[in-house]
Amino acid sequence: MPSPLNIREDRLLAELAHLATISAHPAPAVTRVLFSPEDLAARAWLVSLASHAGLATRFDAVGNLFITLEGSDPSLPPVATGSHTDAIPNAGAYDGTVGVLGGLEALRSIREAGLTPRRSIELIMFTAEEPTRFGLGCLGSRMLAGALSPEKARALRDPDGRSLEDLRPADCPGDLEEVRLAEGCYHAFVELHIEQGPQLDTAGLDIGLVTHIAAPAAFRLYFTGTGGHAGAVLMKDRHDAFLAAAETALAVERAAIESPSPDTVGTTGVIRISPSAINSIPCEAMMEIDFRDTDLAARDQALARIREDAAAACARRGVSLDWSCINSDPPAVCAKDLLDIAARHADSLGCSRIPMISRAYHDSLFMARLCPTAMLFIPCLNGWSHRPDEYSRPEAITRGTAVLARTLFDLSA
Amino acid sequence: MPSPLNIREDRLLAELAHLATISAHPAPAVTRVLFSPEDLAARAWLVSLASHAGLATRFDAVGNLFITLEGSDPSLPPVATGSHTDAIPNAGAYDGTVGVLGGLEALRSIREAGLTPRRSIELIMFTAEEPTRFGLGCLGSRMLAGALSPEKARALRDPDGRSLEDLRPADCPGDLEEVRLAEGCYHAFVELHIEQGPQLDTAGLDIGLVTHIAAPAAFRLYFTGTGGHAGAVLMKDRHDAFLAAAETALAVERAAIESPSPDTVGTTGVIRISPSAINSIPCEAMMEIDFRDTDLAARDQALARIREDAAAACARRGVSLDWSCINSDPPAVCAKDLLDIAARHADSLGCSRIPMISRAYHDSLFMARLCPTAMLFIPCLNGWSHRPDEYSRPEAITRGTAVLARTLFDLSA
Repeated sequence: MPSPLNIREDRLLAELAHLATISAHPAPAVTRVLFSPEDLAARAWLVSLASHAGLATRFDAVGNLFITLEGSDPSLPPVATGSHTDAIPNAGAYDGTVGVLGGLEALRSIREAGLTPRRSIELIMFTAEEPTRFGLGCLGSRMLAGALSPEKARALRDPDGRSLEDLRPADCPGDLEEVRLAEGCYHAFVELHIEQGPQLDTAGLDIGLVTHIAAPAAFRLYFTGTGGHAGAVLMKDRHDAFLAAAETALAVERAAIESPSPDTVGTTGVIRISPSAINSIPCEAMMEIDFRDTDLAARDQALARIREDAAAACARRGVSLDWSCINSDPPAVCAKDLLDIAARHADSLGCSRIPMISRAYHDSLFMARLCPTAMLFIPCLNGWSHRPDEYSRPEAITRGTAVLARTLFDLSA
Repeated sequence: MPSPLNIREDRLLAELAHLATISAHPAPAVTRVLFSPEDLAARAWLVSLASHAGLATRFDAVGNLFITLEGSDPSLPPVATGSHTDAIPNAGAYDGTVGVLGGLEALRSIREAGLTPRRSIELIMFTAEEPTRFGLGCLGSRMLAGALSPEKARALRDPDGRSLEDLRPADCPGDLEEVRLAEGCYHAFVELHIEQGPQLDTAGLDIGLVTHIAAPAAFRLYFTGTGGHAGAVLMKDRHDAFLAAAETALAVERAAIESPSPDTVGTTGVIRISPSAINSIPCEAMMEIDFRDTDLAARDQALARIREDAAAACARRGVSLDWSCINSDPPAVCAKDLLDIAARHADSLGCSRIPMISRAYHDSLFMARLCPTAMLFIPCLNGWSHRPDEYSRPEAITRGTAVLARTLFDLSA
């Protein structure tokens, strides 16, 4: 075992606080959409932090940032950690950032302890874990794992019709074909993240050892009805696209609630209607649905029911429906031996811990296709996440970072 | 009776076609939002048309445009006609514009016949009949009639936070206090408009003589729930603001369908949610409802029911609701003697006609507070309106304009 690694809580908290100020919305809200001015500023600042710490940096063609603490035997597959710094509109300061800045602090703690790992340790800031810009989450890790082809990545368009290649900055060079990594390229991957649920906070526990990551699926639905003047078209003559969408949103909720699996969740997070005028009957509605489960069969059964309900609502209303899949990923299982190592370090640091499942979607879901992967959760207040009052206590962040640092160093031996 | 007034159909249709090209969206869609570059261009073009025809023009402080054919006794209260040229997003080429350009053609037909009316005849292009910018319809006629105080008008804000006074152009001078007109300032007001419903088109009739204008009411609802990560918050722990709004939209429809009055219509034309991210539970929803009836009691009863249903949905979901009234206007009754004069001219021109009620909202609703008022409807294809394929046949437009011209000249004697 190494000499104790010193996590500098003051530095880590100051960096988290500073990163939160790089936002398109005023504090406490945090908004950093992929390749927005704020995202680019956060990237540049991270590169400067890493350089200041004497760590090498490079971007790949999709904008994943790799920060490397070189090991004594760089020919061996490195150990990796990482998370994301992008944030949905009006999010908080901890989702993703704890894994990136905590990961950076872990690397610095090893270096500042005068230790050199055998394997190199890489910190990855993944491009666009959040789906805000292109409607597809985990863009960077998905491409690293080959779960999104360069061809499909090139076809993505944001709401303004711009592509990845239109938007990526000059310091993300090269071809999208070169992003994919080979299986086994890393020895192991461990991600530190806030729980985004209330389990640890409610129970007063320090560390969640994630054993499974739930299977997410996302869909985009276009409803096409018939417009008209809100005053002049009688109710019996209407084909209101928004009302068909409203019924479908309620069907999504019903299917999740009535699913036999306790972990099924379904959300309609996006709805846009056209023409969007108070005195006009909506002729079009676009809706985005997120549906997840740890039980793939239960998820698919619930989804089939939603499709039936949506089709029935549309048929009754004379509205047509175009249903497309944005992504539908299988669940991931974390590597038991990595979790055992993390558990040992949690115990030696006096951290309480439980095994957990992750209902949220993470870059680890895709990293698990490349190498043995594990996730460490820390508590966040009331389980709140994706909102400005998202909060993790300083000691929770420090403990998680300390377990991460020791686990990475151990794995790099 | 005057010598026959000649409506130059070719000129009128060419002008309607040209006006449709002044649009923020490509043809056949027409979008002209109050004080947008397109609205300002349409205003400037109208002024040039009027000047070319030798008619005087002036704007008031809210942007109503008055085009005057001077009578032999300008001391008498003038006869007035008018409508609007603003258009909601992706609307068509005939709503409002037929009344403005048809009104201009009516004035020109009198002048070109070498006739001088005794009373002056004024054509009014009303500011913002459509509520797109400020959420409030009939802005211009509402202020003329004193149904919207200058104080409340000054407090209006568009979605970007801009006020009427921020936006109005330099050629709309003076104080908003000066917009209001005195009761009796006009001898009579007659508005020509497309039906925006299918009754005339289905029956193959030329002219609808509007006896009543339905009572419109509009509301803005803010739902506030609790956000959170779409993957991590279990269904039982949610307070989803959008689902409360979706239930309310369906309650609006149900109340309209089940109302004992055959003319009740209810529409949710606007819905916006926040944060509007696929993986985030909506914490806020804003919804705008339009509800109308010719029967004020039936309307208010249905609205009470919607409020109950919305309150119940919100209580069940732990979502709070702020319900505000944008406007709630009483119905208007058209002047029988004006309708009789119009009927006589319709008959003499060989136009078929029926009495009708207007379910849509018009500037006439407010002009009726200032002077005896009537409306003439012409058919539009399938009753379609507020959509790009809105269409009235050339002969329908010409016949309506001919009846309007004769009615105005008759009233001015």
